[in-house]
Amino acid sequence: MTDITTVSDGLDRLEIELPSWGFADTGTRFGKYLQDSAAITLEDKLDDVAEVHRVTGCCPSVAVHVLWDFENGKAGPAAALARDRGLRIGSINPNVFQDQCYRLGSVANADSEIRRRAIGHLLDSVEIGREVGSDLLSLWFADGTNYPGQGHLRRRKRWFEEALREVHDAMPESMTMLVEYKPFEPAFYHTDIADWGMAMSLARSAGPRAKVLVDTGHHLQGQNIEHIVAFLLDEGMLGGFHFNDRHYADDDLTVGSIDPYRLFRILFEIVQYERECTRPLPIAYMIDQSHNLKPKIEAMIQTVEMVQGMLARALLVDVEALEAARRDGDVVDAERCLADAFATDVGPMIREWRRGRGLPEDPIRNHRESGYVARAASDRLARKSSSGGSYA
Amino acid sequence: MTDITTVSDGLDRLEIELPSWGFADTGTRFGKYLQDSAAITLEDKLDDVAEVHRVTGCCPSVAVHVLWDFENGKAGPAAALARDRGLRIGSINPNVFQDQCYRLGSVANADSEIRRRAIGHLLDSVEIGREVGSDLLSLWFADGTNYPGQGHLRRRKRWFEEALREVHDAMPESMTMLVEYKPFEPAFYHTDIADWGMAMSLARSAGPRAKVLVDTGHHLQGQNIEHIVAFLLDEGMLGGFHFNDRHYADDDLTVGSIDPYRLFRILFEIVQYERECTRPLPIAYMIDQSHNLKPKIEAMIQTVEMVQGMLARALLVDVEALEAARRDGDVVDAERCLADAFATDVGPMIREWRRGRGLPEDPIRNHRESGYVARAASDRLARKSSSGGSYA
Amino acid sequence: MTDITTVSDGLDRLEIELPSWGFADTGTRFGKYLQDSAAITLEDKLDDVAEVHRVTGCCPSVAVHVLWDFENGKAGPAAALARDRGLRIGSINPNVFQDQCYRLGSVANADSEIRRRAIGHLLDSVEIGREVGSDLLSLWFADGTNYPGQGHLRRRKRWFEEALREVHDAMPESMTMLVEYKPFEPAFYHTDIADWGMAMSLARSAGPRAKVLVDTGHHLQGQNIEHIVAFLLDEGMLGGFHFNDRHYADDDLTVGSIDPYRLFRILFEIVQYERECTRPLPIAYMIDQSHNLKPKIEAMIQTVEMVQGMLARALLVDVEALEAARRDGDVVDAERCLADAFATDVGPMIREWRRGRGLPEDPIRNHRESGYVARAASDRLARKSSSGGSYA
Amino acid sequence: MTDITTVSDGLDRLEIELPSWGFADTGTRFGKYLQDSAAITLEDKLDDVAEVHRVTGCCPSVAVHVLWDFENGKAGPAAALARDRGLRIGSINPNVFQDQCYRLGSVANADSEIRRRAIGHLLDSVEIGREVGSDLLSLWFADGTNYPGQGHLRRRKRWFEEALREVHDAMPESMTMLVEYKPFEPAFYHTDIADWGMAMSLARSAGPRAKVLVDTGHHLQGQNIEHIVAFLLDEGMLGGFHFNDRHYADDDLTVGSIDPYRLFRILFEIVQYERECTRPLPIAYMIDQSHNLKPKIEAMIQTVEMVQGMLARALLVDVEALEAARRDGDVVDAERCLADAFATDVGPMIREWRRGRGLPEDPIRNHRESGYVARAASDRLARKSSSGGSYA
Repeated sequence: MTDITTVSDGLDRLEIELPSWGFADTGTRFGKYLQDSAAITLEDKLDDVAEVHRVTGCCPSVAVHVLWDFENGKAGPAAALARDRGLRIGSINPNVFQDQCYRLGSVANADSEIRRRAIGHLLDSVEIGREVGSDLLSLWFADGTNYPGQGHLRRRKRWFEEALREVHDAMPESMTMLVEYKPFEPAFYHTDIADWGMAMSLARSAGPRAKVLVDTGHHLQGQNIEHIVAFLLDEGMLGGFHFNDRHYADDDLTVGSIDPYRLFRILFEIVQYERECTRPLPIAYMIDQSHNLKPKIEAMIQTVEMVQGMLARALLVDVEALEAARRDGDVVDAERCLADAFATDVGPMIREWRRGRGLPEDPIRNHRESGYVARAASDRLARKSSSGGSYA
Repeated sequence: MTDITTVSDGLDRLEIELPSWGFADTGTRFGKYLQDSAAITLEDKLDDVAEVHRVTGCCPSVAVHVLWDFENGKAGPAAALARDRGLRIGSINPNVFQDQCYRLGSVANADSEIRRRAIGHLLDSVEIGREVGSDLLSLWFADGTNYPGQGHLRRRKRWFEEALREVHDAMPESMTMLVEYKPFEPAFYHTDIADWGMAMSLARSAGPRAKVLVDTGHHLQGQNIEHIVAFLLDEGMLGGFHFNDRHYADDDLTVGSIDPYRLFRILFEIVQYERECTRPLPIAYMIDQSHNLKPKIEAMIQTVEMVQGMLARALLVDVEALEAARRDGDVVDAERCLADAFATDVGPMIREWRRGRGLPEDPIRNHRESGYVARAASDRLARKSSSGGSYA
Repeated sequence: MTDITTVSDGLDRLEIELPSWGFADTGTRFGKYLQDSAAITLEDKLDDVAEVHRVTGCCPSVAVHVLWDFENGKAGPAAALARDRGLRIGSINPNVFQDQCYRLGSVANADSEIRRRAIGHLLDSVEIGREVGSDLLSLWFADGTNYPGQGHLRRRKRWFEEALREVHDAMPESMTMLVEYKPFEPAFYHTDIADWGMAMSLARSAGPRAKVLVDTGHHLQGQNIEHIVAFLLDEGMLGGFHFNDRHYADDDLTVGSIDPYRLFRILFEIVQYERECTRPLPIAYMIDQSHNLKPKIEAMIQTVEMVQGMLARALLVDVEALEAARRDGDVVDAERCLADAFATDVGPMIREWRRGRGLPEDPIRNHRESGYVARAASDRLARKSSSGGSYA
Repeated sequence: MTDITTVSDGLDRLEIELPSWGFADTGTRFGKYLQDSAAITLEDKLDDVAEVHRVTGCCPSVAVHVLWDFENGKAGPAAALARDRGLRIGSINPNVFQDQCYRLGSVANADSEIRRRAIGHLLDSVEIGREVGSDLLSLWFADGTNYPGQGHLRRRKRWFEEALREVHDAMPESMTMLVEYKPFEPAFYHTDIADWGMAMSLARSAGPRAKVLVDTGHHLQGQNIEHIVAFLLDEGMLGGFHFNDRHYADDDLTVGSIDPYRLFRILFEIVQYERECTRPLPIAYMIDQSHNLKPKIEAMIQTVEMVQGMLARALLVDVEALEAARRDGDVVDAERCLADAFATDVGPMIREWRRGRGLPEDPIRNHRESGYVARAASDRLARKSSSGGSYA
């Protein structure tokens, strides 16, 4: 197979799910950053996803947030709205952190009524997924404590096991539960699902259709993410990704903007695995970023380009030479197999692939020239309320 | 001098400034935590500070936040309101990060009009300080960038130097400028004043009355804070502290709640310095914490107790034995001088000091039994608006 | 039960295993630190352990290092030598990192002969354990890679699984395998057993008598160790500890010397667990420190005192009040239950316990006054060769 | 100027100094890694440097280590030996950490005789520099403490100031002192020169010819190195680099092997500065790596290629477009100016430059085919003693 075919086939198979909340105004605890064209309603968000999909051709699904995208926790016309735009509803993201009742925890709250309420919301989310035809339930919990002694760590773990098992049992056969981990924030002393080991343990205890979700920004400094990805792959427990990048904590920057080589190495672990296996892996590639300063749609297009570019490079690694170098203990040559693929200029191949798919060669320029943002801003600004609120 | 006298004298000299914003509702980017009794107005905040001062006897001043505590950026009756409660206005904290115009920076913005506007606010803050009789201008800047290339790092540094010099020149002789540093958040790629070295360099360039403000939560993992404190002391550049604690990033937890031994070591550096010098150092001890889960007044009282307890222990270090051990290269004994003082039960001494000052022996219990919080909640809840907004 | 009884019972049950290698000269990659009285032979090391045990009464066993303590990998007279000194041989620590053949890995080496050789050494270690009557096989692997691409991460994982299973199967029923994890060093890009999750996964795959060993210095900055301990306890997978402390990486400092409150919190998780369970847990408390600057025996005594002191404090936590506060969501009071116990002066209780056991009240002073070190130095200095070599 | 001219001119100006110790056997505290062809004598090291210089054309100077490269601390024939190989002696690196007398510090030792001895060695190093015609004195100190209380932090700072001032005064006019910083290792609680701020402060206090040396591996996780470089440039205090890369601590891996984009950003700060200034900066580019697993000469060639490649990319940044994007607040375009240059395939340009200079197009292949390593191994293996010892 020629390089260009390898890359084309890989790009053909790549779908990246965009988050509805990535098109609304976001910020830090110090304040929200407001953009004139930021989306307000689910329709706005779907419009924006459709615009990204129009110029990239690889974002047909959108992750939705139950609390922010569905009124009264009901699916409503979401599926139809997506279909109208050539999209589909992807992962369902419950929210059991925003309500004040969850300040000391949701499914790990010492108060059984609050645990019940949180589980109820998760079960509602399963129902929404069923209605909109989604097969992904994506779970992130803010549960944790801020001070030593505040919580009974093992008891909270048990509550998590019970809750996830109940939700897993309620899921239709086609649905996968993704369990996300995060070392800290918004809990500052302990977070109940703090790392991949805890997420895998809880997913296993929940049932066979529960897997681990790797958010690339949810690691401590120095953690080797591609190693975790490899380990989860081998355990059959890698469910998907929330892509983003970071310099310090969970900064939610554009993936690959700080350390592109790491993204390349993560993708190479998957490429290598898929080459060795006969069956392709159902890994969900999703974006979770907060574009406070960048125009949101541009930033999403840039994100897609980055993932495509790094996947193309990962596909170009000469795996045979790599294996030979490993066998010979030739550390320099083994490293060069990765470094050379990373240094390849894949621009021409990707542009050729775009032409072949009838896509614009320069997606950001095409989007800029389309006038989409100006129209959206003019329409949305008129509708903007001064409402505050938070986001994930 | 007996131990009890040493401790009493030290506690007599200790004043801790409380932040007005520490009594209002705060949160994380994922949402605010609402407390019924959280303060709304400057009067509320002063009432709360007065309550902490009533039971601890060591918090006579309050740090104010220009944007949140002063209407139209005017001092108004703040000084009188404080005086009425037996308090005084302490450090003045400008805010050049909340307004949308500052999204790409304040005094380091590429747009000269925005730089001018930010400097204008800083100069207004100097004026407010003059009017309310404060001699501390406390500067924290959110300025920074989120992506490589976004800003011209050296040019931004120069803009900072110009701005701080201009503000310094406008300060009355009695006023001190405190320059705070922080490695990241809300900027995620580079922060213009990222560490103590940058803060010291900028303070020196501003003028002789500019010093460095050490926020104990504004360090990278592994940084030795007491070493920085010692270095700044020796350079004559330590201006004050923002006390809080953290497990991960800038978590703004109760000081000493995660690592009390570190707080002890920081205070010991100052105790040791003051023993060696003839003149006492004008260091501003201030609190900067976000009590999302704890009742705010209780948490502040707990904070004061923690600082008093650690200062008492630091005062009890046998400095002569320590110096002898250092001279002899006896690492075990030198360490034990610190560890033994840290392990001392200083409760009886502190309670005796409180009795002597006519203060309640158990400040938190006294506060709880006073019914203050219930009254505040009843009064404030009625006034609460559903307004969102951010905080520092 | 009175406080003093609680503490006494707890101290009676506490045994701390000392590492033979903790009495020999150690250093950093920049050079070894030589001490005149540093142990040379196994006999020296056992003498030193006996001295620590003499003054502390709680160190009856010694961890041995197969490569350094046994000639030709044979048990020899080790058990008898220990017995003669009132000691016993504790955990057996194989060494599959020092030989040059392991530079690219031991059981995860791409070369099957080297894997075989490493497994052979592990099996020999099982045999040694059987001969000396030890029931602990303590496994730390330096395996890892220095550069991206160098190793096939999943394949190496499989080799680890095979090796551990084979060794597990060879262990007598009474033996427990402890699997240690470490994020980095001496491998600098990826370490095959990098965190507790990988260690637990590999231990489970090895067999029912494999557990996880927590070295308190083997964590990334910001990791919450007591949470990991609680998680492992609940999974029934906590096998033991290597105690030490650190400010930055795996610094191997005296446990509790940098962050005593953390050690207290770790021990409290175990105390809390044992209170809830009927059966006591067979957790191995072991020391793994490098006392480069401190006299080694003094440092070990200091270590034992630190663990005893923190265990005593952990035993004094008012668990009922703590549970009540947790139930009520009273974060301040829950935290104070821990903080108050930590601030307790347990010196008098521990000294009373020592008197009751016929132990010296001040173990370090007693040791210093015994003249042991001077005698050891005089004897050993004469025997010292200038041999280099490395250590763990 | 065309791209190729820009790149060629930049590569023409680039000189990279190689460390003599980078060709000898190195390791970690767990053991040395032995290579048959590792250099033993200064002659061997110079031969190896000459081999790297032969195939890369940009390594004409070698950093020497006073303790390891000079017998009795005398310059001897070093300069002539270098000259014979078409090389010159570069930076002089004293060693005041290896001798046992320095276990509690060198110029910051509490013992004035040891301080005197350390200063004496530094003065001898100045003398050696004068004799061999070197104008760089490169100072790294291991000084620090392992335990709280062990040292008097401010007093140690003063001793450092005194020592550096004395050494500075002894330097000939042409000599520059480089002051290196490092957050930890081999000192584990506090390191006297822990960060760039301390290094800059001490360099300023030493005198006008003292500058800061940035070792790219000597930073805490999350520190923004290019920001520090920019700050030092603006202060006129950047003296040079020790290049290497790391995933965790001071791992001394091949520069750019873990995070090539960071190396690019660091070099771009310098390129940008030099474009703005009229005078070129005398920055010393030096390598400080420990190639434990890679063949040492290959690894050095790989290092040179990496630096050349990243410098070429940095030279290709469209600075005018970048400045325009910054002016417009266009974060996406500003970032893309850097990202696009980084993604450029500079291979053809560099190969053309090599051809023009009469250098082999593929330096590593040329070196491999030369048979140099086999000859060196055969010669050196015969001479290898089993001597231990440490290294930097």
